Amino acid sequence: MTFQNAALVAVDWGTTNLRAAVLDEAGSVLDKRASDKGMGQLVPDEFEPVLVDLIWDLLSDGAVLPVICSGMVGARQGWQEAPYVSAPCKAAGMEQAMQVATSDPRLSVWILPGVSQAKPADVMRGEETQIAGFLSKFPKFDGVLCLPGTHTKWVRISAEEIVSFQTFMTGEMFSLLSTQSVLRHSVGADAMDIATFNEAVSDAMSRPQAVASKLFSIRAETLLADIPEEVARGRLSGYLLGLELSASRPYWLGMDVALIGDPALCGLYKDALEAQGCPSRVHDASDLTVAGQWAAYQSIKDTP
Amino acid sequence: MTFQNAALVAVDWGTTNLRAAVLDEAGSVLDKRASDKGMGQLVPDEFEPVLVDLIWDLLSDGAVLPVICSGMVGARQGWQEAPYVSAPCKAAGMEQAMQVATSDPRLSVWILPGVSQAKPADVMRGEETQIAGFLSKFPKFDGVLCLPGTHTKWVRISAEEIVSFQTFMTGEMFSLLSTQSVLRHSVGADAMDIATFNEAVSDAMSRPQAVASKLFSIRAETLLADIPEEVARGRLSGYLLGLELSASRPYWLGMDVALIGDPALCGLYKDALEAQGCPSRVHDASDLTVAGQWAAYQSIKDTP
Repeated sequence: MTFQNAALVAVDWGTTNLRAAVLDEAGSVLDKRASDKGMGQLVPDEFEPVLVDLIWDLLSDGAVLPVICSGMVGARQGWQEAPYVSAPCKAAGMEQAMQVATSDPRLSVWILPGVSQAKPADVMRGEETQIAGFLSKFPKFDGVLCLPGTHTKWVRISAEEIVSFQTFMTGEMFSLLSTQSVLRHSVGADAMDIATFNEAVSDAMSRPQAVASKLFSIRAETLLADIPEEVARGRLSGYLLGLELSASRPYWLGMDVALIGDPALCGLYKDALEAQGCPSRVHDASDLTVAGQWAAYQSIKDTP
Repeated sequence: MTFQNAALVAVDWGTTNLRAAVLDEAGSVLDKRASDKGMGQLVPDEFEPVLVDLIWDLLSDGAVLPVICSGMVGARQGWQEAPYVSAPCKAAGMEQAMQVATSDPRLSVWILPGVSQAKPADVMRGEETQIAGFLSKFPKFDGVLCLPGTHTKWVRISAEEIVSFQTFMTGEMFSLLSTQSVLRHSVGADAMDIATFNEAVSDAMSRPQAVASKLFSIRAETLLADIPEEVARGRLSGYLLGLELSASRPYWLGMDVALIGDPALCGLYKDALEAQGCPSRVHDASDLTVAGQWAAYQSIKDTP
């Protein structure tokens, strides 16, 4: 299969892997490719060969193929640093994209910058491209975006700009506590009791500091009362999310909230917000990064 | 060197290692031994050989050497389960010690039980023996014991009994976040800025829920403002301890607090409590477990 009409390669290059989409001149996806060569295992010189390896069949002599990258590839330890743009700012910071010098003349590589915030100190790298994609579909959106994940982002959007944002390590804490701590013996691996989860969320919201003591009680209840793993898991997840919702209240209270990310995880956020009287909508996140890269390309390709 | 006057072997048998003290008839320590054969790596049949291996030179035909064990050796997955005694109760639950059948007739092995609490659900296994040791030295103590560690215990003591207690996973969370999470790139390995630590404690105590968002800001400040590792470490430690002190307030507020454990860690707790107007004393914890096992032995040896 050949892709003679490939107009752009959009690369989401994270710490552990990369995903590339091949787009035609209209922004339609012709093909998708992936590799496990994340930036975490590469030194600067190794990025170009990895990229060429992934898209060699799209390159032809005498032609130049544009490649837009976003994510950790632009971090200080990445291919080339694309310094953060400071919020408030346009979502993908397209004007500040960095062009990377390549030894292969058939490539024209750009890296999109992340977004920073001075106070409270915060950073994002990758999410801003999803946000750009979301705003390319809903340019009039005025409200709050929540991107649940390892490091969940709450983002205030107005007039197509990222006004402010805040990051929560809830996902990473859940992962560490459920797989590495003493609680791993209690929470099991999969199912979660949703009623328990919702109860734990409101428990944590009414007395956030108590989360510090309630965590070990999950283990104790397994030992003393043999509570089911799905109950233990619901409690752990609910306590941590309740703590996050308690701290992020200024973001969601009385706001129009859009959730972007893994549907199951977004569903938990939606349930928890609903119990607090905050309606929200879950958006399909699957192609938002590509949409954001495409939107960035639209502006960059006209730059001299 | 021989120990013909050995009267008791006191074994603190935890998950990852065991420490044995050889005592004479007056309770003085004649010798100390250790092994890395913790209960976590042993099946029930393997405990006796490990013990014999450690004290073979103390055993003589025709004589029976008493051995008192405490710690995880008495858990369900240990040598033999010594079921929890339910608080309120005497510290080491000496009356409920379990005698273990051994194939070597020169041994008389007892396992001390842990202590449980039904509501809020909580358990301890090992700390109750330190508490017994503390109470054998300060039988009139009426107040609160705090045993900082991986799982810090706050324990209300009155009339030589454990009245109630609460466990916090602060130590384990600090360890996971500082070595396994994204914060490991920020906090370094050793030194901690104490002024930052104290500030973070009071920050967390005045707005406990904000800890959920302040954690990632440590990482962001490293990236944006290049804050020193000891400042980042002070902040992480302070936020987590502030969250614990906020939740454990009913334990320490207006109480006589005695800290037992690693002196450096106890020092951090002491500083943080002092800033909240709560004076406390740090006690040498090094021989409390042995003292508690000795106290238990005093009662058991008279049992028919």
